[in-house]
Amino acid sequence: MFSFELQAVCPETGARAGILHTAHGDVETPVFMPVGTQATVKGVLARDLLNDVDAKIILSNTYHLFLRPGHETIRKLGGLHKFMAWPRAILTDSGGFQVFSLDQLRKVNEQGVLFRSHLNGDPHMFTPESTIDVQMALGSDIMMVLDECLAYPSSHEAARFSMERTVRWACSAYEHYRRVGGDGMRACFPIVQGSMFADLRRICAEKFLELDADGYAIGGLSVGEPREMSMEMTEVTAALLPKDKPRYVMGVGMPDELPEYVARGIDMMDCVLPSRNARNGYLFTRQGRVIIKQTQYKDDPAPVEDGCPCYACRSFSRAYLRHLFLAGEMTFSTLATLHNLQRYLDIMRDIRQAILLGKFPDYLKARRQSAS
Amino acid sequence: MFSFELQAVCPETGARAGILHTAHGDVETPVFMPVGTQATVKGVLARDLLNDVDAKIILSNTYHLFLRPGHETIRKLGGLHKFMAWPRAILTDSGGFQVFSLDQLRKVNEQGVLFRSHLNGDPHMFTPESTIDVQMALGSDIMMVLDECLAYPSSHEAARFSMERTVRWACSAYEHYRRVGGDGMRACFPIVQGSMFADLRRICAEKFLELDADGYAIGGLSVGEPREMSMEMTEVTAALLPKDKPRYVMGVGMPDELPEYVARGIDMMDCVLPSRNARNGYLFTRQGRVIIKQTQYKDDPAPVEDGCPCYACRSFSRAYLRHLFLAGEMTFSTLATLHNLQRYLDIMRDIRQAILLGKFPDYLKARRQSAS
Repeated sequence: MFSFELQAVCPETGARAGILHTAHGDVETPVFMPVGTQATVKGVLARDLLNDVDAKIILSNTYHLFLRPGHETIRKLGGLHKFMAWPRAILTDSGGFQVFSLDQLRKVNEQGVLFRSHLNGDPHMFTPESTIDVQMALGSDIMMVLDECLAYPSSHEAARFSMERTVRWACSAYEHYRRVGGDGMRACFPIVQGSMFADLRRICAEKFLELDADGYAIGGLSVGEPREMSMEMTEVTAALLPKDKPRYVMGVGMPDELPEYVARGIDMMDCVLPSRNARNGYLFTRQGRVIIKQTQYKDDPAPVEDGCPCYACRSFSRAYLRHLFLAGEMTFSTLATLHNLQRYLDIMRDIRQAILLGKFPDYLKARRQSAS
Repeated sequence: MFSFELQAVCPETGARAGILHTAHGDVETPVFMPVGTQATVKGVLARDLLNDVDAKIILSNTYHLFLRPGHETIRKLGGLHKFMAWPRAILTDSGGFQVFSLDQLRKVNEQGVLFRSHLNGDPHMFTPESTIDVQMALGSDIMMVLDECLAYPSSHEAARFSMERTVRWACSAYEHYRRVGGDGMRACFPIVQGSMFADLRRICAEKFLELDADGYAIGGLSVGEPREMSMEMTEVTAALLPKDKPRYVMGVGMPDELPEYVARGIDMMDCVLPSRNARNGYLFTRQGRVIIKQTQYKDDPAPVEDGCPCYACRSFSRAYLRHLFLAGEMTFSTLATLHNLQRYLDIMRDIRQAILLGKFPDYLKARRQSAS
């Protein structure tokens, strides 16, 4: 059965530590979810994600899997967990964000969104109900409702119109979810929208309270707005959400932003940053970013990060990783992704520990000082 | 100390089982060596090569490492084993084959071969002595002497001229090796050339006997000649080589060719085929080749090969691997390479077992029947 157990709340900041109980294991929060868009985290084998990174939950993308290999194929093969040999929890997005990124290839109306596949141009439609059905076929532990994700900046009028439609869609989706998937084995989160307008975010969040949802996501951020704005929207929204339900900010963030979101009451995050940056040769460390192609690492026998327990740091020098990167070797991407995911999940483990020990304000202060 | 222990010889065919004792562990022969051109097997982490594939020796390419990151860099960092976190044996080629593949970018004279880097056009020279020095800097367990590798077909005259130069180079290289690396901790093999002319191969092999080398390689095959010709050249050459030294045919072969080379007295082989074919979606199985992109595998829940102990076959369906391949995911290459290397090494383990049990002729017969 899906449930959320709140274990501790930082009285100064509102940062929370808890556990998501899912049909595929417990997930300690706050949590960062590695992204496995096409039923694999890019460059990382499922077993390494399990044994090395020790991720308890990953995110996979409904839009991509709907198009290829198709959710019915995955259902027939026993669901996404079995398909990708991932025994732990999976969160799927609704496909909304990807579809709205298609720009020229889509058309929105009250029923849903018409779009053309970026792979072959085939026309498809996502409705609030159909995206639930697709996620049910995948066997997701935590599903998202279809939402409309606006570009930044948007006018207040456009944002209100869009937010109101997102609310209507969420109500339809949730009704459908209660009927086809509401047996308590999984969860479904509506996604608060409202662009960068606090009043719209508040209206949206309040509407969603009526759904008594399993958890709540905050979407429409990380679309190019200034960082303070993302933080403000998160703070405004999170303040209105029920304390006993998990809160998920979608698509964030940089390492130094993770504690900031947690300080605003967020329990869950996901982002392609650690894996994408890894492939591009950007490695995150406690001491800052290592840009591996730089000549200074040519003969450097030190690991990417001293004391890091990941396989890359335990076994290889910066010089070796630089060599693999320059040589265009796939194993670079694998090692770099293992490292960056280790870094992200270590940050989240540190944050959680700090909250449980009542030391999160100190942790946050130290992080802010080292970042500035 | 490097040595070769002959354990069994098949009386009918001359197939041999033995052990290469190296400073980095024992290598049971006959052996297939996975290729790690640029200090990594493409797509496969060193630990997986160790724990999954259980390779006891791999090959790395002198030419590539000389150019990037440079052998002096690798020496400074503690040698190739440490650089790539590979604790077992490493064989390095002399760079000759790669340089002779450059075609427009090289010029051969009696001293050696002048060439331009395929990376940046910089001019370099390989001499018989310098390629030993480079391999010593890498810390190779089994080094190769510089040889001239002719295109196929070549005239008898050109082949004789080239073979005689290869012999002179080998003598210079071996003299240098005895001086700088002949402490018994490693090995150095001359490479028998002679194009597709049995008489030249014989002359070359006989000349090399005078070197009393640690082992002998057969080069200049797999350059486009018919398969019967490669086999004939191997047979003719191997028959002349001393029984107590290991014999290595360079750059072969397809799965059904492996026992054929062994039947001709060969102990060691290497080839990019299992890894390159893997990346291209060609998977070797006992039942033949699986071309993973084929539509027939779209919903196929079976593993690539029933009963195969590799991680890919233990964990994933053909449908999943096909999906990863079509989606262009790196994890496909990793899984497919793990499988193909497993297949190759399993074949070699089966062959060795058959020789030790005195059943190699039966094994060979069965393999020939299933291949035809």
